[in-house]
Amino acid sequence: MPVDPKAAIVLLKELRALTADEHGAQRLAWSPTWLNARAWFQTKLAELPVEHHLDAAGNSWTTLKGKSEQALILGSHLDSVPNGGWLDGCLGVLAAYAVLRRIAEQYNGKPPITVRLVDWADEEGARFGRSLFGSSAFAGTHSIAQDRVRTDASGATLEAALAACGVNIDAIGNAAIERANAAAYLELHIEQGPVLERMGLPLAAVLGTKGVERHAITFHGQEAHSGSTPMNARHDALAAAAKLALEIRPIAMRHPDAVCTMGSVKTYPGIVTAVVGRCEATLDQRDLDADVLATMYREAQQKSQQFAEEEHCTVEWSRIWNIAPEPFHPQLIAFCEEAIAETAGHSHRMPSGPLHDAAEVSRAGIPTAMMFVQSLHGISHNKIEDTREDHLELAIAAFDKLASKTIEWIRTH
Amino acid sequence: MPVDPKAAIVLLKELRALTADEHGAQRLAWSPTWLNARAWFQTKLAELPVEHHLDAAGNSWTTLKGKSEQALILGSHLDSVPNGGWLDGCLGVLAAYAVLRRIAEQYNGKPPITVRLVDWADEEGARFGRSLFGSSAFAGTHSIAQDRVRTDASGATLEAALAACGVNIDAIGNAAIERANAAAYLELHIEQGPVLERMGLPLAAVLGTKGVERHAITFHGQEAHSGSTPMNARHDALAAAAKLALEIRPIAMRHPDAVCTMGSVKTYPGIVTAVVGRCEATLDQRDLDADVLATMYREAQQKSQQFAEEEHCTVEWSRIWNIAPEPFHPQLIAFCEEAIAETAGHSHRMPSGPLHDAAEVSRAGIPTAMMFVQSLHGISHNKIEDTREDHLELAIAAFDKLASKTIEWIRTH
Repeated sequence: MPVDPKAAIVLLKELRALTADEHGAQRLAWSPTWLNARAWFQTKLAELPVEHHLDAAGNSWTTLKGKSEQALILGSHLDSVPNGGWLDGCLGVLAAYAVLRRIAEQYNGKPPITVRLVDWADEEGARFGRSLFGSSAFAGTHSIAQDRVRTDASGATLEAALAACGVNIDAIGNAAIERANAAAYLELHIEQGPVLERMGLPLAAVLGTKGVERHAITFHGQEAHSGSTPMNARHDALAAAAKLALEIRPIAMRHPDAVCTMGSVKTYPGIVTAVVGRCEATLDQRDLDADVLATMYREAQQKSQQFAEEEHCTVEWSRIWNIAPEPFHPQLIAFCEEAIAETAGHSHRMPSGPLHDAAEVSRAGIPTAMMFVQSLHGISHNKIEDTREDHLELAIAAFDKLASKTIEWIRTH
Repeated sequence: MPVDPKAAIVLLKELRALTADEHGAQRLAWSPTWLNARAWFQTKLAELPVEHHLDAAGNSWTTLKGKSEQALILGSHLDSVPNGGWLDGCLGVLAAYAVLRRIAEQYNGKPPITVRLVDWADEEGARFGRSLFGSSAFAGTHSIAQDRVRTDASGATLEAALAACGVNIDAIGNAAIERANAAAYLELHIEQGPVLERMGLPLAAVLGTKGVERHAITFHGQEAHSGSTPMNARHDALAAAAKLALEIRPIAMRHPDAVCTMGSVKTYPGIVTAVVGRCEATLDQRDLDADVLATMYREAQQKSQQFAEEEHCTVEWSRIWNIAPEPFHPQLIAFCEEAIAETAGHSHRMPSGPLHDAAEVSRAGIPTAMMFVQSLHGISHNKIEDTREDHLELAIAAFDKLASKTIEWIRTH
């Protein structure tokens, strides 16, 4: 019996009806709605010959034991941002469910290798600002000291929110035991960008997740009266920031897939009658190639210094966060391309700008690949997030083929 | 007996001791500290043969009757912004007091024409956002309907604050009766900018107050994920605004005294991981020439449209406020230059970027001139606002000469 993409889409709509309101999906990690989504998913698993448990970080594991303990892991996350879409995360979980079900049926409950489904806890980090929570605990890249003191907008701590869901923050590293026998990890996700739609393609093989350099940049000038300060006597912090906002574009565009974004600009005193004395900006730079990322970071720093001098200002940089690029496994990428070509006729390779749990799994040394399906208008983290249903069907069918190729590879490896 | 600049400076320091705290001057209009400053000033007037009253808008008038009813008015304001300086406004009032005292003494209480001193009410508009309150009522350019509903940060209304000081908002237009017999108006003020300090000059004759075009400009793009949206697929509202922030500078610098300022930029959603979907900026444009002002406004609009198109955005303009330029009286400007040349050796002519009560008086058709004295570092509206004491003495001496020349002009006119 082949995989049933239409049934998976029915389940996605059922989950949407259960966990979205008029503003979108509300499956915020550690919330009652998220727990409700997980309980709903359990009712679907009950029909399969599987074992289920939560690990020490709250990740939800479903195991279909095979003849070999070597395991293929299929996964994604049920949690969403507030007012999120119906596909981000859930698509990967429900596609994995469809594949797991097909394998269980095909092999009469005993496939040649073990197949596991994981629903990672708190991929989004939307409430406490800590994304990839569960997968980083699995991978051993968790950060208990910083995470313990994280609070949400109401002042509640991450530690307390975890405890309310039965997770002891001091023990989350024990999730690493789930790495035993892991032979490969596969994840299907919506693209969350406009690339495939612009190319007219439904699916892509993901080359890896881009590394990120994220900085706060502050230009210091001199606040001055807008009426009494001649143009040539100004130390205009906004002018220096404006030059950098424009310069990061050629810095990015010298490389095929690189991106640089100034997402926030704040002006002080920020009133209509004063030259800007201080301007705070953020810069987010990403590329799959660590050397390209380092070059872009260095160029932006040099240009910011030049612009500060030109405008009689000074500039300070402060790192908000950074992460290295994580290239996926070449053989699994090749299988992903084959599966897409066999299903949709034409494949494409692209890096992922957004981070995904797959990056943490790959960082732990487990061969990993991801498949992207086209997002309409490139929009996600929004209730209008959507993908054509024929594309969703192609995606689940192709992901199923990728799983079969990977099982065969693990079996014979 | 000549004017006594040193005595005026002693009074300025006395007023500072009375009305400033460690953060600066606190003579916010309609506040107890402001009323206290005015009461203190009354004790100084008691020594002179003058009549005193408050007009219907709370302006404080002190009259030294002369042989003719034709009146020279000397004025400025005792109110300050919160955490203000020791000279803005007060210098003009205390210099006028020194000149009035000199004239009273010289003519034994009966000068050839009437000389009046006015302390305008609420020049700064710091609490309710309505600057030039008293002088606009005098000039007939007041705006009761808008002003009635103004509130301060605590929600108190301007109407109630006025009433607590004995001013009925519906009657403020009656201040116009003070225009009777007004033959000229003179005001001494600190420059509040860096021009004279950069030129090494103590004093300047003011050509008039610049007109102002003040607008809110909103660029609408498309919020998008900073990691998944290729550079060439973005509708980056910040990029369009950054181009305009830089372009307003050549637009201003094509004209000798024009200024254009982008004082506030706000980004939405304004997070490090999103391309800016909406960017709100302010633009403040000023020049003494109405045609130049109109040209700069038109050019900024055209460029904003061009930049919006280049960045696949749209742009909206909304006028915050505007005011026409107000050139001062040519003969009085010439007297001002003569008085400065006779006192300090070298004069300079310059427009005022900041607005002053003098602009309202001039708008009412009364021949008007202003004199500027150098500000250290061009800084005002701040406790570090300062002017060299030798420059203050030169300023009061030159202002006294300007008053004498103007009295003679009125007498023989």
